[in-house]
Amino acid sequence: MTAARFQRLRQVLEFRQPDLTIVTDNVHKSRNLSAIVRTADAAGIGGMHCVIPDKDYKAFRGTAMGSHSWVKVERETDVTAALTPFKAQGYQVLAAHLGEGALDFREPDYTKPTVILMGAEKLGVSPAGCELADAFITIPMMGMVQSFNVSVAAGIILAEVQRQRQLAGLYRQCRLDDDVYQRTLFEWAQP
Amino acid sequence: MTAARFQRLRQVLEFRQPDLTIVTDNVHKSRNLSAIVRTADAAGIGGMHCVIPDKDYKAFRGTAMGSHSWVKVERETDVTAALTPFKAQGYQVLAAHLGEGALDFREPDYTKPTVILMGAEKLGVSPAGCELADAFITIPMMGMVQSFNVSVAAGIILAEVQRQRQLAGLYRQCRLDDDVYQRTLFEWAQP
Ligand SMILES: C[S@@+](CC[C@H](N)C(=O)[O-])C[C@H]1O[C@@H](n2cnc3c(N)ncnc32)[C@H](O)[C@@H]1O
Ligand SMILES: C[S@@+](CC[C@H](N)C(=O)[O-])C[C@H]1O[C@@H](n2cnc3c(N)ncnc32)[C@H](O)[C@@H]1O
Repeated sequence: MTAARFQRLRQVLEFRQPDLTIVTDNVHKSRNLSAIVRTADAAGIGGMHCVIPDKDYKAFRGTAMGSHSWVKVERETDVTAALTPFKAQGYQVLAAHLGEGALDFREPDYTKPTVILMGAEKLGVSPAGCELADAFITIPMMGMVQSFNVSVAAGIILAEVQRQRQLAGLYRQCRLDDDVYQRTLFEWAQP
Repeated sequence: MTAARFQRLRQVLEFRQPDLTIVTDNVHKSRNLSAIVRTADAAGIGGMHCVIPDKDYKAFRGTAMGSHSWVKVERETDVTAALTPFKAQGYQVLAAHLGEGALDFREPDYTKPTVILMGAEKLGVSPAGCELADAFITIPMMGMVQSFNVSVAAGIILAEVQRQRQLAGLYRQCRLDDDVYQRTLFEWAQP
């Protein structure tokens, strides 16, 4: 490993946002999940949670995408189990969902501890996911088509999250606990 | 066709932005092109231009995606031929590209007549495309991965274009010439 590479690993860890995550609620296509992981990494998300059937999870882990090594992907079998620990810690759960009373996606304060909940390709966010959401957020659409591809929607929302967190200075100093920082740096620096 | 459906077709046509388009520079995967078309529709783009090899174009047209009927996709064989007519009409060409001197994607004034140029999955924007660009625009990334999926990048940029055009009131009155409006409404209203 070159010194420049090592410096880059440290820089990226210093950008990581431990109080920001994504939960996917039965998104099942590998290519969508891979694009979401890649986008999560870019926003400084270090860990993500995928509610996904067994067969689809195997296919997803099978796709050799570089970003998988930088973002820890936890598999969950149930959206309630995935969200409950975050609710207990006081995270806001914002479901990307085109429901009654949804907020424009630029309205929430994303500098708070936040879970972004993304819905499945066909069915959207599940009833159990909607139940646990503190709010629905929606990206306005001016065309005939009724929804974005889920990875595109995640990208648009995360770009706004990143903008707000950048303004608030949340990428300006390391936000990981020292032991997490050191452990991850050690893992990443393995040949 | 119900009256509500007809009203919706009219509403969407009234949102269309005739001075805004996308050119794809050898983006070749159908699923990426389809996601870009879907996102273009949502931003009010009525026509887009794809520089794409023959075989990939056939595969792309073969994918039965609803949005294809709402956005006119012109096939182009060469990026210079695709961009030259827009340059001649005074459009700014903004290439989504991570090059030297690229602007943050929120900096340009997207209320001007604009072409967004998106690059290929592996190779990015071609040298000929870079040559014709008035500026490069880049979405900041804070992670290990060096680029977004191209349809995610297009979505993030178009969300900003839409935001600016909404603020400027460009979705508030019909911007299509009357003959284009009537012709398209007629086509769309066909059973
Ligand atoms: C293809 S959409 C699902 C559409 C589904 N038919 C529905 O009505 O929920 C997949 C996911 O992408 C996200 N999404 C797509 N378009 C969105 C928009 N305009 N605003 C917010 N989220 C969106 C949501 O999380 C959604 O569940
Ligand atoms: C997968 S990227 C191509 C990466 C290619 N290796 C390069 O260096 O250009 C495909 C296209 O998505 C767009 N894109 C991806 N990430 C971007 C970013 N951070 N800023 C601007 N455009 C981006 C660009 O149009 C790019 O050409």
